[in-house]
Amino acid sequence: MPAIAFGRFDDSFSLGSMKAYIAEFISTLMFVFAGVGSAIAFNKVTLDAALDPSGLVAIAICHAFALFVAVAVGANISGGHVNPAVTFGLAVGGQITILTGLFYCIAQLLGSIVACYLLTVVTGGLAVPTHNVAAGVGAIEGVVMEIIITFALVYTVYATAADPKKGSLGTIAPIAIGFIVGANILAAGPFSGGSMNPARSFGPAVVSGDFSCNWIYWVGPLIGGGLAGLIYSNVYMHHEHAPLSVV
Amino acid sequence: MPAIAFGRFDDSFSLGSMKAYIAEFISTLMFVFAGVGSAIAFNKVTLDAALDPSGLVAIAICHAFALFVAVAVGANISGGHVNPAVTFGLAVGGQITILTGLFYCIAQLLGSIVACYLLTVVTGGLAVPTHNVAAGVGAIEGVVMEIIITFALVYTVYATAADPKKGSLGTIAPIAIGFIVGANILAAGPFSGGSMNPARSFGPAVVSGDFSCNWIYWVGPLIGGGLAGLIYSNVYMHHEHAPLSVV
Amino acid sequence: MPAIAFGRFDDSFSLGSMKAYIAEFISTLMFVFAGVGSAIAFNKVTLDAALDPSGLVAIAICHAFALFVAVAVGANISGGHVNPAVTFGLAVGGQITILTGLFYCIAQLLGSIVACYLLTVVTGGLAVPTHNVAAGVGAIEGVVMEIIITFALVYTVYATAADPKKGSLGTIAPIAIGFIVGANILAAGPFSGGSMNPARSFGPAVVSGDFSCNWIYWVGPLIGGGLAGLIYSNVYMHHEHAPLSVV
Amino acid sequence: MPAIAFGRFDDSFSLGSMKAYIAEFISTLMFVFAGVGSAIAFNKVTLDAALDPSGLVAIAICHAFALFVAVAVGANISGGHVNPAVTFGLAVGGQITILTGLFYCIAQLLGSIVACYLLTVVTGGLAVPTHNVAAGVGAIEGVVMEIIITFALVYTVYATAADPKKGSLGTIAPIAIGFIVGANILAAGPFSGGSMNPARSFGPAVVSGDFSCNWIYWVGPLIGGGLAGLIYSNVYMHHEHAPLSVV
Repeated sequence: MPAIAFGRFDDSFSLGSMKAYIAEFISTLMFVFAGVGSAIAFNKVTLDAALDPSGLVAIAICHAFALFVAVAVGANISGGHVNPAVTFGLAVGGQITILTGLFYCIAQLLGSIVACYLLTVVTGGLAVPTHNVAAGVGAIEGVVMEIIITFALVYTVYATAADPKKGSLGTIAPIAIGFIVGANILAAGPFSGGSMNPARSFGPAVVSGDFSCNWIYWVGPLIGGGLAGLIYSNVYMHHEHAPLSVV
Repeated sequence: MPAIAFGRFDDSFSLGSMKAYIAEFISTLMFVFAGVGSAIAFNKVTLDAALDPSGLVAIAICHAFALFVAVAVGANISGGHVNPAVTFGLAVGGQITILTGLFYCIAQLLGSIVACYLLTVVTGGLAVPTHNVAAGVGAIEGVVMEIIITFALVYTVYATAADPKKGSLGTIAPIAIGFIVGANILAAGPFSGGSMNPARSFGPAVVSGDFSCNWIYWVGPLIGGGLAGLIYSNVYMHHEHAPLSVV
Repeated sequence: MPAIAFGRFDDSFSLGSMKAYIAEFISTLMFVFAGVGSAIAFNKVTLDAALDPSGLVAIAICHAFALFVAVAVGANISGGHVNPAVTFGLAVGGQITILTGLFYCIAQLLGSIVACYLLTVVTGGLAVPTHNVAAGVGAIEGVVMEIIITFALVYTVYATAADPKKGSLGTIAPIAIGFIVGANILAAGPFSGGSMNPARSFGPAVVSGDFSCNWIYWVGPLIGGGLAGLIYSNVYMHHEHAPLSVV
Repeated sequence: MPAIAFGRFDDSFSLGSMKAYIAEFISTLMFVFAGVGSAIAFNKVTLDAALDPSGLVAIAICHAFALFVAVAVGANISGGHVNPAVTFGLAVGGQITILTGLFYCIAQLLGSIVACYLLTVVTGGLAVPTHNVAAGVGAIEGVVMEIIITFALVYTVYATAADPKKGSLGTIAPIAIGFIVGANILAAGPFSGGSMNPARSFGPAVVSGDFSCNWIYWVGPLIGGGLAGLIYSNVYMHHEHAPLSVV
């Protein structure tokens, strides 16, 4: 692998890497099944009413709890990315190789698609809601929103999980990662939807066949995650890798 | 005990095992009392209205918090299963013997029945709601839903508590186990009810005398929990027990 | 101190004990101010409407979060009891002396009274709601409810904080203690109110001058807490103190 | 630095201090973006309705989760203050120098202003709500409320993070710090708004141009935070720094 990305796996095809891809697939399936499921559940109990504060709480808490657990159960096997924007942010900071990262993303996207397909089965064929910007919110505003909130997410991943100086923060890292997503959904839900995760948005798009706004949830999260990786690794971690340089 | 199940207790009738059964009884009683109690509380304050998002949040958070604590208080004594599907999933992966597991399940079922009986006493005889599939959801869909969400639960138990490589994840394992149940209830509540636990469903069935859908909450959780035990132990733990085999 | 209660403080009047009393006073003040404050807040924003599921969530989460923190901030100084039922349950199990425990309770009651008085000041004189059983719930039912849910609370205190075998559970003990109270309020709130704590109920009674149901919140929690102390210490801890006896 | 304030940074202009200022800027930006964003989100989905219990839960949980994470991600770099009242409270107790503390506050205020400016961009220009006391609540009552709840917050910071005797509490310190703010918002939200943080209140005032009540959220939090620093450091930590004195 070239200079910009070297990582913890010697070989993207090793047995350990295969297990990591399976872990990403299962973690993302668990997360998307619960998260998207909570949005379908809101539609069912309210007969497709408009989002209200209690529905926002239900959906945000579900994503927070489910992502915390999805990250936790993958932590020791794959690192628990569960999100192409996290994988990309970690690749930018040299925490994972490009090739392994690509396989991670494929596993995440497959997990999300399978989760959404299973949701159509178990709900008797109810519609799977896709992410899109709310009325009165432009696409650019949606992209900027997703950039900011994904920056917060990936910065959290770096500070609590990837930074070798994390110390006892590592113990609560999965909770922090899940809960910043919950907090951001409570803020961004009625605007951009609060995805922060291309896989979370891609599965519903595939199963519903509606890709109209899907690009927003690739562009925003990848820029935000990449920025976080660039900034965190250069400002706080650079001297670890290159002790002679002055940051 | 034969090859498929050997565990941490040398003797299912030892003093330590007796303490473990008492611990499972008390933990399950605590969990079911709070969880089912929150459903009765919703019915009381809403005069038996249909489930709405704020009620779903109340019930999901109650189950999440109560299961977290029930698992935590049992963790050092019985392992904190609180759930026949967890016990079965751990037996499948060789983490507990069949006989000890059976006694665990009996203790869990008794705890749930006593909890539900006590709820009828303290609520002045209000009805104890049982799990069943919602209108528009078939029995098979309910079973598949319970399989998927119980898979997530037992996979979480393995990754955070049973896996010897868990490391500092073990510190937050009870929180993860409780919170994946909370997240799954937010998604599955309006469809299958979101049990993931035959004991949670059995106590209300016994006290109310309504076993009409109870089979769903045995079949679904036991299949889902068994699958999780099979997959996690073979994919991620097998080489621990049999270092010479190539997985 | 006689046989039934010997504890961690050599002297109930030592400097360390004085600091512990101050810590209990401040922790209980913090907890009761937030907890009772959330009930007043609900009354204010709903213009004294009847409790609904979203109000129940607000009040339960507030108590859960505030008790978690109140226990945490006192943990290393006083043990973080914040509750006469906890202190009594620990005295029954020999974890604190009778005399020190009495001073703890006085500090807790003072903290609660001051908190409620401050609430009347900062809310412009709004009424401080007291605990009492709901319409259709008898006093005996209220007592039994409080016994059961306080048992769960004090059992949690033992398993996660007082038991020397607690291990890494100790790290999350304050969260477990707070969250079992949150879960129990979600179940018991619309019936007994879900106090589990004589201090939590006493402050509002003093400031409002309404002691009509206050005895319920002494009898129930003290019986429940005492039972938990008796059972946990004898079943799970007895051999620690008397290794020659067979439990 | 003179006697009243000496701290962990030898030099307020060192490379480490610069990184700490950046960390405070980013952490406060993350916190204020989510927290104020959740208030705007409530206004959007309810079409500017009056605060109700579910909105209070949404806003309180968002602040709790976001502050927990903002503190966590800054913990190892700047200590994770995210709040001039915390910085002031720690300066009073000699945990940070006056000069470094001033730069911390500037970074926090800048982070809050940028967060609020970004919120106006991504929401299509929606109003940024400022903190002010509710109808029927006087300014003095608001100040006293903020004093009490900020005291609880900074006392929590001392007990779980700054006290060298914190032990394993340090692992969950960011959660405790975030959650006491969540609990206090559930109580104080409908009265003073529940700021506890001059930076949290200053950003919205700057962006909206409305400073009418802003002084309340400087005076209250700084007095409350200062008192907590004074009391905690003198009662519980004094002998650490001056072993010869008798407290």
